[in-house]
Amino acid sequence: MEDLIKRVREFRQERDWGQYHSPKNLVIALMVETAELAEHFQWLTEEQSCSLQPDKLAEVQEEIGDVLIYLANLCDRLGIDPMSAAYEKLEKNKGKYPAAKVQGKYLKYNQYK
Amino acid sequence: MEDLIKRVREFRQERDWGQYHSPKNLVIALMVETAELAEHFQWLTEEQSCSLQPDKLAEVQEEIGDVLIYLANLCDRLGIDPMSAAYEKLEKNKGKYPAAKVQGKYLKYNQYK
Amino acid sequence: MEDLIKRVREFRQERDWGQYHSPKNLVIALMVETAELAEHFQWLTEEQSCSLQPDKLAEVQEEIGDVLIYLANLCDRLGIDPMSAAYEKLEKNKGKYPAAKVQGKYLKYNQYK
Amino acid sequence: MEDLIKRVREFRQERDWGQYHSPKNLVIALMVETAELAEHFQWLTEEQSCSLQPDKLAEVQEEIGDVLIYLANLCDRLGIDPMSAAYEKLEKNKGKYPAAKVQGKYLKYNQYK
Repeated sequence: MEDLIKRVREFRQERDWGQYHSPKNLVIALMVETAELAEHFQWLTEEQSCSLQPDKLAEVQEEIGDVLIYLANLCDRLGIDPMSAAYEKLEKNKGKYPAAKVQGKYLKYNQYK
Repeated sequence: MEDLIKRVREFRQERDWGQYHSPKNLVIALMVETAELAEHFQWLTEEQSCSLQPDKLAEVQEEIGDVLIYLANLCDRLGIDPMSAAYEKLEKNKGKYPAAKVQGKYLKYNQYK
Repeated sequence: MEDLIKRVREFRQERDWGQYHSPKNLVIALMVETAELAEHFQWLTEEQSCSLQPDKLAEVQEEIGDVLIYLANLCDRLGIDPMSAAYEKLEKNKGKYPAAKVQGKYLKYNQYK
Repeated sequence: MEDLIKRVREFRQERDWGQYHSPKNLVIALMVETAELAEHFQWLTEEQSCSLQPDKLAEVQEEIGDVLIYLANLCDRLGIDPMSAAYEKLEKNKGKYPAAKVQGKYLKYNQYK
């Protein structure tokens, strides 16, 4: 991931695009790309979404690439390490959703008894 | 990233949440988390978004963690390697936006002359 | 709708919030509110989404209220009449998706033969 | 708005698209359309977003049409009256954000002293 962030930064600097890439703008771009990813799934059933055709899968992969590129860009501008952010949140989620308690049920963490 | 995907998978399996985690549902969750991230920026100026206060930055980091966790989850269900997806897309973008041509300008790739 | 736009404008002016309500910011807010609406549906099956419990429905109604309020706000700032926009787009869609051709099938308009 | 909902319903029925238009799917579509609207603003400054060129404004108007069409569709499926939802929420917001208290400041309602 560090290497991706480095390359995304070089890509931006070579094009002198830093002036457009404020965190605020990057966050909008991230939402736009995420929605383009979602567009591929909007009329599929859940079952269909589990077994995409190869050409569809290739398109989805490209959109995932875009999402990760903008996420790397955003993290670079904010000075956040995305991997640490994910690991820390995952640990926190283990506390919020203890496996023994939430087995097979999906509620907000404050709705478990 | 591979390690994160592995841990996210274990987290899901220990809770028996696979039944909820169809790619379609994960894509909705990804959009919801991305919007929660965006919420922190919605009333900031671009300039303010470049220098967040430490407590705000910590909240933003958590949301980025959530985004990356769901992205890892989605990639695991689809059998897509997110890092490859990002590198391939970045290469493609280099072709679409040659540095010499787009220097300091930001248009859709088909709007450059 | 005109009346709603008028009231939303008064609400904004009484609070002196015009300075925050640039179209760009309102569009982010609109995405955030739409995602809050979507959050209620993310782990439901399509079938479950068709028959919400009354308390859930009340929460969904509130989120729909927020979405429409921000849409009214945005249209006011841009000088766009949302009802005309919808009617014109609906007419356009009739041309793009002729009933006889698309009966029971859901493709992008350029994928019909 | 009632008339728009009626016409959107006819449009759906003539095409036999009800099978695709579960509230869950419509909510995804609503997010996708909202993001397409946002895409027009992502690299603009707030100031630029206040004075769009006529051709840009026409494109934005079309996207707003799409958003309102899907919102009407969703409300029809859920049996929710969007205008009532907006008016009720606006009243609620007046209680949460009293004009005298929030004058020119923009915080979450529980952050005012």
